[in-house]
Amino acid sequence: MSTFRYRCTDCRKEYGRDDVRYLCPACGAAWRPGMPLLGVLEAVFDTASLQGRIDKTRPDWSLLSAVEPRHFPPLTVGNTPLLAAPRLAASLKLGQLFLKNDGQNPSGSLKDRASFLVVAEALRLGESRVVAASTGNAASALAAVCASAGLEALIFVPEKAPRAKLVQMVMHGARLVPVKGTYDDAFALSLAFTQKRGGLNRNTAYHPLTIEGKKTVSLEVAQQLGFEPPDAVFVSVGDGVILAGVHKGFADLVAVGLLPRLPRLIAVQAEKSDAVHRFIRTGAYQNALAPTTVADSISVSCPSNAYWARRAVQETKGLSLTVTDEELLSAQRALAASSGVFAEPAAAAAYAGLQKLQAGPDALPATAKVVVLVTGHGLKDVDAALQSVTIPPAIEPTLDAVPV
Amino acid sequence: MSTFRYRCTDCRKEYGRDDVRYLCPACGAAWRPGMPLLGVLEAVFDTASLQGRIDKTRPDWSLLSAVEPRHFPPLTVGNTPLLAAPRLAASLKLGQLFLKNDGQNPSGSLKDRASFLVVAEALRLGESRVVAASTGNAASALAAVCASAGLEALIFVPEKAPRAKLVQMVMHGARLVPVKGTYDDAFALSLAFTQKRGGLNRNTAYHPLTIEGKKTVSLEVAQQLGFEPPDAVFVSVGDGVILAGVHKGFADLVAVGLLPRLPRLIAVQAEKSDAVHRFIRTGAYQNALAPTTVADSISVSCPSNAYWARRAVQETKGLSLTVTDEELLSAQRALAASSGVFAEPAAAAAYAGLQKLQAGPDALPATAKVVVLVTGHGLKDVDAALQSVTIPPAIEPTLDAVPV
Repeated sequence: MSTFRYRCTDCRKEYGRDDVRYLCPACGAAWRPGMPLLGVLEAVFDTASLQGRIDKTRPDWSLLSAVEPRHFPPLTVGNTPLLAAPRLAASLKLGQLFLKNDGQNPSGSLKDRASFLVVAEALRLGESRVVAASTGNAASALAAVCASAGLEALIFVPEKAPRAKLVQMVMHGARLVPVKGTYDDAFALSLAFTQKRGGLNRNTAYHPLTIEGKKTVSLEVAQQLGFEPPDAVFVSVGDGVILAGVHKGFADLVAVGLLPRLPRLIAVQAEKSDAVHRFIRTGAYQNALAPTTVADSISVSCPSNAYWARRAVQETKGLSLTVTDEELLSAQRALAASSGVFAEPAAAAAYAGLQKLQAGPDALPATAKVVVLVTGHGLKDVDAALQSVTIPPAIEPTLDAVPV
Repeated sequence: MSTFRYRCTDCRKEYGRDDVRYLCPACGAAWRPGMPLLGVLEAVFDTASLQGRIDKTRPDWSLLSAVEPRHFPPLTVGNTPLLAAPRLAASLKLGQLFLKNDGQNPSGSLKDRASFLVVAEALRLGESRVVAASTGNAASALAAVCASAGLEALIFVPEKAPRAKLVQMVMHGARLVPVKGTYDDAFALSLAFTQKRGGLNRNTAYHPLTIEGKKTVSLEVAQQLGFEPPDAVFVSVGDGVILAGVHKGFADLVAVGLLPRLPRLIAVQAEKSDAVHRFIRTGAYQNALAPTTVADSISVSCPSNAYWARRAVQETKGLSLTVTDEELLSAQRALAASSGVFAEPAAAAAYAGLQKLQAGPDALPATAKVVVLVTGHGLKDVDAALQSVTIPPAIEPTLDAVPV
């Protein structure tokens, strides 16, 4: 591991890794539940000393890891396929289209990456309990990784989280506390819990290593593309932490000289859960008032990492889009039927955004090389899928009964 | 690719790859629905010429592939993690325990491997439709791989297949035909269909490349263990085709000189779906009369590959076990809570068999190196999981309401 320091993304003050745990003490003190986090910390590596030291053919990513591999839990995460989707590329008039299928992580979502690194940090610190609030995926990821490491996972989720995700948590032996309320309510409660009763809080962006865990997806994409950066990367956005992680990963690669430039980052939100989108478009922040969308994983009133999400889009000259529930469910079907990748609704939002962009005046050119991040598996929420497909009726087992 | 010929596992007669498609014409003619397949073909490679030609550090497995990589569909399958499970190994008094987590395949089960190779064969042959009967996983795998390749999948499943698997098939655009009856009824109907109306039939063991596809799991396990074979591999068994594929893979590795010996293969069936088990134990074959088990993927009255399954256990000096539904659901919980791997009930049967063996007089020694094959993801059937766990009630979002 290379040495790193934490730097406040607001005041730029730096801290040693063990001098601070969550937010910047100065900026974070002004934060209150119901607003985006203030004082989110960024792990800053000595990238100058890493110039030319990472071998492109066999990159040692531990040099960019904020926790030493000796603390890693047994469950392996990441190293998911980057899939060429030639049929979809042709239908969208794109040069190349790749799907980074993070639904193939052990618990079925990209969130395994963040949980992996925070659990590694818990093992380093000797903490026996990790606490999180989650819309579902981060919690099922935490439950799985804690199970492999022998740590206790204590999880606060909105009671309306999809049943499959709740079942995962319980099967992995987590202490599950469904909360009457929203993700935002669960978030506030989990913070109150760790402040009063202890444990390492894994809340997304609140613990800075969630962003570091998620950045590994960009390291892999770059490597899988032979360090020739894509023109654009589409990311479904809820609280903005995956987008921040994707940005951080590419930025680290540029800083150590492995990539010549950042790809454009395209943020896609659900139309009714669009606080980040509006913030990017207008510069004025406001919570989403009624974040009701079938895409539960990106249903957020108050996105914790709104500031970094906006910066990720601005610094990469990207853009921001919203899609309706009908558009994202339609994209889910198209993706499954033409690429073999079954994404959960929230994960299909990124592809829906690409479809929408290509159908309008700002379409990417026919030479563009595009990556769509698929952040969670469709098996996470089959009820949502059943809103747009129908299982045909059963027939008698005779050839004559088979419909032609 | 090395050249290969098909050889009948019954009469040993050999055929060129394009001289025959499914069963040995001579032996298969005697087969009738309701009995295990006769005349199952085995792909026989020129292993003598491959001695010393496969590099252990970077094995070119296309040399042992029955279809050339240029015909491979876009969806990548396999290359799943082999996970060390030190906590489970200690609890079972084993030297080393590894979980081969094939639930991390794109459609969530090992069946992706067989569908991948048969779809590659369909592309080679110019067939535009692939037909299958399935308990669920083979069909959802076929639907996903066909979607990626632009082929039509036509699927016959028992109407009682878990809903998540049916949703996968429909989402991937397959033509789904639920059948009022059992897997065995669907199997017979699919054969009648392809005989009368065409398409490539992918039924397991009936198409010999299903076994070749499944063998890739053994190639990977051997490579992941540095070509030091495990002492035993535990495999959940329904129709016996995964077990045959696992056996074929290890046998090919021994034949080309990459492994010094075969591991013992341990077949584990559900107590009420035990036709292979009884055949191995008694030498007298009889269908399972009422194969009712929560482990739907291994619920089979008439196992198509019973003969090869028995041979796999006998040739490797393995053994055969059964487990009750209670035992396999309990194993599912133990696996999820202590390793982070959430297996579907059928996949947990293998681990249940290991637990049972270690609790009895024939326990493997404390030096043993064991691999348990996890053949499908728990998200495939959350209703089954809910038979043995409970989701706690929701609380008000206040710290005082959190149970201590």
